[in-house]
Amino acid sequence: MLLSRIYEPIKSDLDKVEESLASVSKVDFPWLSEMLGYSLSGEGKRIRPALTLLAGKFYNYNLDCLQPMAAAIELMHTATLVHDDAIDKSLVRRGRSTINSVWGEEKAVLLGDYLFARAGEFATDTQNLHVVRLFTQTLGTISSGELGQTFSAFNMNQTREDYIDRISRKTASLFSLATESGAILSRAPESAVKSLKGYGHNMGIAFQIVDDILDFIGNEEEMGKPVGSDLAQGTLTLPAMILVERYDKDNPVKRLFNHEDEGRNIERAIEMVRNSSIIEECFGVASEYCARACHSLSELPDNHTHRLLVELADYIAKRKR
Amino acid sequence: MLLSRIYEPIKSDLDKVEESLASVSKVDFPWLSEMLGYSLSGEGKRIRPALTLLAGKFYNYNLDCLQPMAAAIELMHTATLVHDDAIDKSLVRRGRSTINSVWGEEKAVLLGDYLFARAGEFATDTQNLHVVRLFTQTLGTISSGELGQTFSAFNMNQTREDYIDRISRKTASLFSLATESGAILSRAPESAVKSLKGYGHNMGIAFQIVDDILDFIGNEEEMGKPVGSDLAQGTLTLPAMILVERYDKDNPVKRLFNHEDEGRNIERAIEMVRNSSIIEECFGVASEYCARACHSLSELPDNHTHRLLVELADYIAKRKR
Repeated sequence: MLLSRIYEPIKSDLDKVEESLASVSKVDFPWLSEMLGYSLSGEGKRIRPALTLLAGKFYNYNLDCLQPMAAAIELMHTATLVHDDAIDKSLVRRGRSTINSVWGEEKAVLLGDYLFARAGEFATDTQNLHVVRLFTQTLGTISSGELGQTFSAFNMNQTREDYIDRISRKTASLFSLATESGAILSRAPESAVKSLKGYGHNMGIAFQIVDDILDFIGNEEEMGKPVGSDLAQGTLTLPAMILVERYDKDNPVKRLFNHEDEGRNIERAIEMVRNSSIIEECFGVASEYCARACHSLSELPDNHTHRLLVELADYIAKRKR
Repeated sequence: MLLSRIYEPIKSDLDKVEESLASVSKVDFPWLSEMLGYSLSGEGKRIRPALTLLAGKFYNYNLDCLQPMAAAIELMHTATLVHDDAIDKSLVRRGRSTINSVWGEEKAVLLGDYLFARAGEFATDTQNLHVVRLFTQTLGTISSGELGQTFSAFNMNQTREDYIDRISRKTASLFSLATESGAILSRAPESAVKSLKGYGHNMGIAFQIVDDILDFIGNEEEMGKPVGSDLAQGTLTLPAMILVERYDKDNPVKRLFNHEDEGRNIERAIEMVRNSSIIEECFGVASEYCARACHSLSELPDNHTHRLLVELADYIAKRKR
């Protein structure tokens, strides 16, 4: 698989990050240990921690700080997923029952809080106050982005700018933390920190656009979650936005957001998007952000890691799950 | 009022902490600003930030770190209340509608996350990695304590030890963070840090015991929340535990935890506790922890702050709201 080839130079260190994550569930309370083990043993692609390690490869690679930071970032990501699923009452993720569907929403919220705490603790293990500060700021950005999404649910008055702003906050902020912190912790010069941060930011936007595409064209079995979830939550993503732009009148998204015959209109919107060039257009926008990501790297040393990051951008822009 | 007399030497600094808290709601998004303003303008007693400032008075009082730490602690406290209310679906707190009753549970969960983030950011403003680490560990302790409470809901097999352990984690841990961090940030010697931490820990236990008493004897109007909430949630607190010890057979708590005629059995339990010496016994236990708190201070300089902390312990043990 392409991803494992890209991860090759950091494979053994990514395994160590995995060990850090596994250590989180070694706690005295069996009920907590069980929930933690379950939430951390998923089939995640571990893209964010991989980005931290790869970003650390350009200068003074120091696993003593990169390993806890990579773990902190993956834990923060897991915590936000646990809360998202609880809030959305989602039953399945990555082909498995969600924490809230197994243990209930109350326990899912508290488990998410616990994961944020452990994430923060790993961040302090870097002994670097600057990255700890970025870490806390990123959590603020993500949660305000998610909150913004709930406030704009079922609202048709949203521009593409609003969309990019929202996904910048809820998704790209963590990608850019991943690369920026990797750069800072390897004592990269300021210009390189900025470059790697820019790479992460643009990659994060591309990643989310593809995620939003997959919610329309994905195979439920491959994705491990139901298709059309965004529409069901009233979230206006890029494919839906373009569908509205193209078919301004009598549009299923408009009817759905007006709470008319929801099931039928979700089906109809998915069908219309699939049978149009909207998907191509969206993949085009994602590719554009990946190109920007690669362009951000142009000032960095032209080495093997540089080439792997370019390949990773290509993988992200074309991924099917 | 007694409390304002105890706060007298830190009054102007506590006002500055209040300014820090108010600054949190100055954000670009009006919807977020409104929620933050609402959640932070409550009628809280601000005991935890006061403890941080008072603990800082013994050695090198430095408001530059104490102010952000006190704000961090109050924000963490607020965040946990926002999540608790969302989880318990509570409608009223401190005489006002809860965040979840005004904005819904989803937004309450995300607002709590945002508050944790801002709390963490204030903690990093201290520039002291040691207290940032304690801060993240305390969040882990609190959320595992809360989680433990949900796992033991409606369970009769709980000992007093289990009870003290649970409230140590969910409540006392933040009190001890308040005093310990105040001591650390004022460069107190290690033995003094330990003493002040012990004071906070025991005070926190006493505080929670009184909270649990007030859930039986409180005046709904004064408390600003309904009486009997703990029983309704299936939380076995000290007064309920003693009621079961004394009336082992045919006990309303047992019937309630067996989900029989809930409303009637809550009323009956409250009535039985009120018409017995259980309340006195519970206040006695709270006083014991306050005495331990004061005893913890014995090695500290015998100054005005020392005497105020003793008075504060007395206030906590006898408070009626």
